Amino acid sequence: MKSTPTIIAEALEAGQDSLNEFDSKRILAEYGIPTATEVPTATRDGALAAAEQIGYPVALKVCSAAAAHKSKEGLLALGITNPAELATALDQLLPAARELDGRILVQEMVSGVRELAIGMIRDEQLGPCVMFGLGGIFAEALADVAFRMAPLTDTDVIEMSSEIKGSRLLEGIRGLEPVDMKALGHCLQALGKIGRDNPEIKELDVNPLLIRNGLPVAVDALAVLEKPLRPEQPTISPTVGLRHFFEPQKVAVIGASATPHKAGNDVLKNIQANGYEGSIYPVNPKGGEILGLKVYSSLADLPDGIDLAIVILPAAATPQAIMDCAARGIKAVVLAAGGFAEVDEQGETLQQATLDAIRETGVRVIGPNTSGHTSTPHKFTSSFFPLGKIPRGKISYIAQTGNFATHTMRYIKTAENFGVARVLGLGNKLDVEESEVLDYYARDPETGAIFMYLESFKKPRRFLEVAREVTRSKPVILLKGGATEAGASAAVAHTAALASDDRLLDGALRQAGVVRIYDYSHLILTAKALAVMPLPRGNRVSFLAPSGAMLVCMTDLCQRRWGLQVPELEENTRQYLQDISPPYIRMRNPVDIWPSALVKGVEFGYREGTEAVLKDANIDAVVMILMITDETGVPPLDFVVELARRYPDKPLYVTFSGQKKHMDAAKAYLEPQGVPTFSLIEEPFAVLSTLVRCRQAMER
Amino acid sequence: MKSTPTIIAEALEAGQDSLNEFDSKRILAEYGIPTATEVPTATRDGALAAAEQIGYPVALKVCSAAAAHKSKEGLLALGITNPAELATALDQLLPAARELDGRILVQEMVSGVRELAIGMIRDEQLGPCVMFGLGGIFAEALADVAFRMAPLTDTDVIEMSSEIKGSRLLEGIRGLEPVDMKALGHCLQALGKIGRDNPEIKELDVNPLLIRNGLPVAVDALAVLEKPLRPEQPTISPTVGLRHFFEPQKVAVIGASATPHKAGNDVLKNIQANGYEGSIYPVNPKGGEILGLKVYSSLADLPDGIDLAIVILPAAATPQAIMDCAARGIKAVVLAAGGFAEVDEQGETLQQATLDAIRETGVRVIGPNTSGHTSTPHKFTSSFFPLGKIPRGKISYIAQTGNFATHTMRYIKTAENFGVARVLGLGNKLDVEESEVLDYYARDPETGAIFMYLESFKKPRRFLEVAREVTRSKPVILLKGGATEAGASAAVAHTAALASDDRLLDGALRQAGVVRIYDYSHLILTAKALAVMPLPRGNRVSFLAPSGAMLVCMTDLCQRRWGLQVPELEENTRQYLQDISPPYIRMRNPVDIWPSALVKGVEFGYREGTEAVLKDANIDAVVMILMITDETGVPPLDFVVELARRYPDKPLYVTFSGQKKHMDAAKAYLEPQGVPTFSLIEEPFAVLSTLVRCRQAMER
Repeated sequence: MKSTPTIIAEALEAGQDSLNEFDSKRILAEYGIPTATEVPTATRDGALAAAEQIGYPVALKVCSAAAAHKSKEGLLALGITNPAELATALDQLLPAARELDGRILVQEMVSGVRELAIGMIRDEQLGPCVMFGLGGIFAEALADVAFRMAPLTDTDVIEMSSEIKGSRLLEGIRGLEPVDMKALGHCLQALGKIGRDNPEIKELDVNPLLIRNGLPVAVDALAVLEKPLRPEQPTISPTVGLRHFFEPQKVAVIGASATPHKAGNDVLKNIQANGYEGSIYPVNPKGGEILGLKVYSSLADLPDGIDLAIVILPAAATPQAIMDCAARGIKAVVLAAGGFAEVDEQGETLQQATLDAIRETGVRVIGPNTSGHTSTPHKFTSSFFPLGKIPRGKISYIAQTGNFATHTMRYIKTAENFGVARVLGLGNKLDVEESEVLDYYARDPETGAIFMYLESFKKPRRFLEVAREVTRSKPVILLKGGATEAGASAAVAHTAALASDDRLLDGALRQAGVVRIYDYSHLILTAKALAVMPLPRGNRVSFLAPSGAMLVCMTDLCQRRWGLQVPELEENTRQYLQDISPPYIRMRNPVDIWPSALVKGVEFGYREGTEAVLKDANIDAVVMILMITDETGVPPLDFVVELARRYPDKPLYVTFSGQKKHMDAAKAYLEPQGVPTFSLIEEPFAVLSTLVRCRQAMER
Repeated sequence: MKSTPTIIAEALEAGQDSLNEFDSKRILAEYGIPTATEVPTATRDGALAAAEQIGYPVALKVCSAAAAHKSKEGLLALGITNPAELATALDQLLPAARELDGRILVQEMVSGVRELAIGMIRDEQLGPCVMFGLGGIFAEALADVAFRMAPLTDTDVIEMSSEIKGSRLLEGIRGLEPVDMKALGHCLQALGKIGRDNPEIKELDVNPLLIRNGLPVAVDALAVLEKPLRPEQPTISPTVGLRHFFEPQKVAVIGASATPHKAGNDVLKNIQANGYEGSIYPVNPKGGEILGLKVYSSLADLPDGIDLAIVILPAAATPQAIMDCAARGIKAVVLAAGGFAEVDEQGETLQQATLDAIRETGVRVIGPNTSGHTSTPHKFTSSFFPLGKIPRGKISYIAQTGNFATHTMRYIKTAENFGVARVLGLGNKLDVEESEVLDYYARDPETGAIFMYLESFKKPRRFLEVAREVTRSKPVILLKGGATEAGASAAVAHTAALASDDRLLDGALRQAGVVRIYDYSHLILTAKALAVMPLPRGNRVSFLAPSGAMLVCMTDLCQRRWGLQVPELEENTRQYLQDISPPYIRMRNPVDIWPSALVKGVEFGYREGTEAVLKDANIDAVVMILMITDETGVPPLDFVVELARRYPDKPLYVTFSGQKKHMDAAKAYLEPQGVPTFSLIEEPFAVLSTLVRCRQAMER
């Protein structure tokens, strides 16, 4: 048997852009993927002999690199049961094979009603990735597939097989044998290995992969080839790390302005408002003094040892500014100006010049087109949007948008009660990009949880590598903007067609433990929950509500939408809840608070009920739906703060039903003391759902 | 050929609880559903002759009412290609057939890769319903099915075929012929007719229904029988309509109390606070005066002509109170007390006694266990939760929960700025139930949109009948609490197994144009939008935002989650937006407001941008994501109100990014003037998504 490299080399030599079915399957076989028994032949006699040897019924297929989709093109005959039928089929297929410069493949008919598909695709950015899903006609009709980057761990295999909607097909339904998951896992891992070993294989489809007696058998396969291009990715070698940005001792502001409301003025105000304790060096040709600071008329006048420069100059002045900074030994620069590649061709030219200056000097750059970055532990910000003092906390953001230094940060400051550690607006990310920032946040003791808004990945494999590590200790939550449209529908291989959309990325992110969200608002709502409360240990929720309707609706949604369990309580918990409630109501989880509140008051009902479920070993997180109205009573809420302190290992969230002014007052009271509140009753559950996924990522 | 009634009668006579495959298919054939060619036989010779006549390959099946799931039980042989194979198969199947008191069915092998399933199930409440979905093994693995009540219209057929996830299988994928939808539709409608004509057929499975050359062929079928029970449903014949409740002239409060904070006192305060213009007659044995009203010491003392009594007495006093009311000619009663069947056995007994009293007297009853009802056009409420004046508007609620007369109404009153027309808390709905209330709201000129929270349907067919009509002119939005767990997994027929969950109800509700929601909060958020703005004409949305990230995220979600289009604008709109924006940005839908706001101010940007898209014929609804911060400017918002008035046919919703206090002020300014606002930027889109479904229901 020829080895895989030989098969590929010969095909490339012959100018083929794909392998025929037989050769494709020889590679599968070499990597231990079971394939249907088959014999290639070019003659009638050969076919007859092969059929006798294999045993009827058999399938006949035209085998040629030019026959990629045989079923569409009438190049196969299935279920041939005797020599007469074989002869008839050959009448049609032999000439077709000759025309396509191919042979005939005589193949056993593999019996199996479950058609799966597996495949490998070499993504430009992610490298070889493996697909698993429903096969045959369902591959196209349902697109029920999952992807993972190679190499695949056993966990990856388990996760992707349970990720598809049709995963029940793998079980022993309808009297079928359950699929041997070890064997299937081996096939998937082998495909990943094929991809990693053979850079010339661009795509590899195995469809159908039939299940016979519980074991997978590759019935058809197609390998698409390309001469691997290894594009020279000119990379910038970081000269200094991000510490220069996040912990600068001496900061120059180039383009400082004495005029209020100009960016060069606001940035100084911002730095002062945040209580920055290092030295600030405004630079402006006019000299003088701004906001009590001595102004330097040129970079040449600056003292030595400046570690960060914020450049607030028109775009055109940027490349020179970088050169000037380098000349003064400044190694880190924030470029605020917009007007680069995001705008027009002229901007593109300017961006290239800026990139050249970066490469030449080794100066590290955030931006251009960034609204700045923030480092509250260092009492510092480079934002030119006059936010004043930014509250300190353990949430860190990476944002491919200026919002988190402008109006969204304004919202967080005025509508919520949590703080941030680091915020970095990536801008056009000529140099500093998400994977380096993620790596910094990963090691940063000030950062407890990481939230990202990204529209693209500059170094996706590096990003995923870093993410895979950090997600074991810190929650990493991503909103990925700009999911691509269903694209490559004309692709040769099904794997490639199914890899469109953002399924590929989605698989890679799951693999790395990055938790995706889709709601912009949840970049804030989830952050506020993580800012003060721990991750839940699991998905078992208890909640207390003043209404049967709310109990019913939220329980429905926990199951249907949020992947949360509402389990039975421990017997002693249940009994205690029963003891404090009127006898006519049968207490259970979730907890109906109305009866006990009616009898013993709202405060008593919520306090006792909440503590009981917080204590319960079956429960990982608790949501209080707090009824506050003048009519039913407005309880003092110190008991809630007290409970949160006494049970620090379980998230306790509060939401409301009742009177707006009391809800606002409760929020203002509870949040600064570490209990997050939510306006709508669905929100705390949606947040828990995200955090449970973070926990699962951590434990994978 | 025997007719369907004969087949069924003979089977029932013979004590069968199902029909064998051959008889099941004879019924299908009689109703015009194409079936596989087949011949039943009990002998070897007969089988041989049949196979010759049909032509090989053939299938052999044991045909017996006792062989419901042949593939599981090894009672069939497929793909028999010659007499020798036939003989071998018969060796096994003939004895098996004899054992089951059956015969052998010799059947053509129908070639077709697309396995569908159709079925009929007679639901106790909904009557005959029809199922459509993926068949074979996928019926169980994916449960990708849709249901509709019989009879099915052509629209029903189209909707259910596009509702399944695998609907692309019906198209001409992979070189297959598209499925003949007329032929498929006929099969579905015929199943409905079988169900309606033959009450003895409880379930009818057709699985697989194979597609051969685009045409459906029933390959296997199973009819499950039962002697139809026609349970005597003792119904209450309404003596008077709901007008007595919603427009009472003279109201007695039985159990009126002089003690503040008691229900019998609060109900009087409520009636007074709402400005009720009719007469109020408190009844209490103590007599005297309460809240300036003369108290009657017994019902006997009351004047004639009282049309409504609110009974605030302990549960035990209820049956007698109904008798007393009837004796005084009072025809409508609200029963506030709880403590009936919802509580314990004693309560159940009491509930039965109450029901007896209702039947005996013909008095109409809301409740018991209701928190009351409200009719703002009549300035009246029977609620005993002291809400004060309830704001008037065109939203009406039907609630199987007391919340809409208690804390949720308190929330609406204090956190939102919209009003209601009618609200009815159903309580235990001994008499007045949802379908009658829906019918009243349907005809009620004060009601513009109907929202419901229901946990059960008392007369589902009647409810759906009424809904089908009213949804053509008014939006009807339902939150159904308590979706049932996956239940009947042990059912004989697949249709029945798949009818578990609430798929059946879901299909029937879609058919009737009722739009389901799942978020409790949206009973309020969607109502506030409908209270002041029209239904969108279609699903084409434009929105304006101050951030590329928000534009990208909301566009993603419009496609991915909400079924909303973000279409191209008309050329002159686009050009105008370009004219008012800096040249470097290419304007399109959605509208990036940041550049024009930066250049010409926030007010100018939003005003001009919003008007441009409101005018645009490609756009059905507009969302403004309004940036309000001190730094970027806090525009006066009269222009928004003005725009809403000038373009009354398109919904205009506002949401925010920026400073909380300005957002609150904007809400307080805009909402009373008819422009709804939303706290989180996803909310207006989610609401639009629901309303687009209402529009589609209206136009179906």
